[in-house]
Amino acid sequence: MSRLRIAEIFGPTIQGEGALIGEPTVFVRTGGCDYRCTWCDSLHAVDPAFRHTWAAMTTDDVWDEISRLSQGKPLTVSLSGGNPAIQDFSQLIVQGHAAGYRFACETQGSIAKPWFADLDTLVLSPKPPSSGETVDWDAFESCLAAAETARQVVMKIVIFDDRDYVWAQKAAERYPALPLYLQPGNPEVDPSVPLNPQDLSDKLLWLVEKVMADGWFAPRVLPQLHVLLWGNKRGV
Amino acid sequence: MSRLRIAEIFGPTIQGEGALIGEPTVFVRTGGCDYRCTWCDSLHAVDPAFRHTWAAMTTDDVWDEISRLSQGKPLTVSLSGGNPAIQDFSQLIVQGHAAGYRFACETQGSIAKPWFADLDTLVLSPKPPSSGETVDWDAFESCLAAAETARQVVMKIVIFDDRDYVWAQKAAERYPALPLYLQPGNPEVDPSVPLNPQDLSDKLLWLVEKVMADGWFAPRVLPQLHVLLWGNKRGV
Repeated sequence: MSRLRIAEIFGPTIQGEGALIGEPTVFVRTGGCDYRCTWCDSLHAVDPAFRHTWAAMTTDDVWDEISRLSQGKPLTVSLSGGNPAIQDFSQLIVQGHAAGYRFACETQGSIAKPWFADLDTLVLSPKPPSSGETVDWDAFESCLAAAETARQVVMKIVIFDDRDYVWAQKAAERYPALPLYLQPGNPEVDPSVPLNPQDLSDKLLWLVEKVMADGWFAPRVLPQLHVLLWGNKRGV
Repeated sequence: MSRLRIAEIFGPTIQGEGALIGEPTVFVRTGGCDYRCTWCDSLHAVDPAFRHTWAAMTTDDVWDEISRLSQGKPLTVSLSGGNPAIQDFSQLIVQGHAAGYRFACETQGSIAKPWFADLDTLVLSPKPPSSGETVDWDAFESCLAAAETARQVVMKIVIFDDRDYVWAQKAAERYPALPLYLQPGNPEVDPSVPLNPQDLSDKLLWLVEKVMADGWFAPRVLPQLHVLLWGNKRGV
């Protein structure tokens, strides 16, 4: 049986962002990513320098840990990364669903997987120009197609600057039917540097004011609540 | 034509709490309430001492103001208060729906109105013991019945202390099918007193930790984001 590369499994805690904000969640953060965003806030799950910290776990191992953390009580499991779409979560989702758990997956939309079809929530988060990455929209379309039977598919875009904002408007025009979530970028991703909550508030206000001034009422605008609350502390 | 008593109309800004958190919204805050919660954060829309500040507006007046604020672009209108269920919003909802607007209403669930049936979102927020009020569950049931054809009905409970928390668990048991949102109470409601963001974070952490420790994974737990961001400033 092939192993899953897992950077960390933690929770339950509340989901801090996007469509499921506030939802009790156990996070399964996979190791490895096909992107390397300049402002990545999860380098410990992306940079191969951390590869030795990623556990090789069977689906059963992962499931046991989810069950243990959640006291065997069904909740939402968020597959994040890195890019979780590198790996095969089909078996975990089947196993979890049978026990009443729900599955969300957060990915940039660069790799489509058949198991997207079984997700409760797929969050596609194409990366704006400030990331240094370029979106392959064909791959993104493949993700949408793979997720056709998923219960919910949404798009989330992180915005650092005016250029990202204009880019997000164009991305939104491509997919007017996808529920859209905008979130200001985290200005400080080094866990050793204390965050200034005022900076985070200011970034959100900046984004809210832009969206409102433009009369762009389609997206929801949300902060990274966990960063507002806990800073860049890991495992919460 | 009967007039609506309106304490303020403001926005667009993001909805700061509950099911529609982050959603661009124009708020129509009505004047007058059948409750008088000890910790009410909207006394200017509740206490009859402020009655002279409430405008008597026709539905057309209210609609004109919503249109002006939203630049004629459809968004969500939140009917709040005070208790908006004291008044008759049937005509406003028909008029707004015809123009593509959506309507949410936030009420304690003490008064049912036929126009609940036409809402996009009804937020029923029964008040816990710390409010000093007592919930009439028959009236609450009538609100649920009136909202049977509403697109979405959710329950939101504000929690100040352990007693409220236990009460919320019982309220949740009554309505297991209603999506539930928990929110820590705002410890300081006087707009002239600056809020300490740390206090708000601490209250949310306290609630998140309780919910997680109990393995109570049904509710979403969310802060009053607007209070975290703007303090108790009005009109935002």
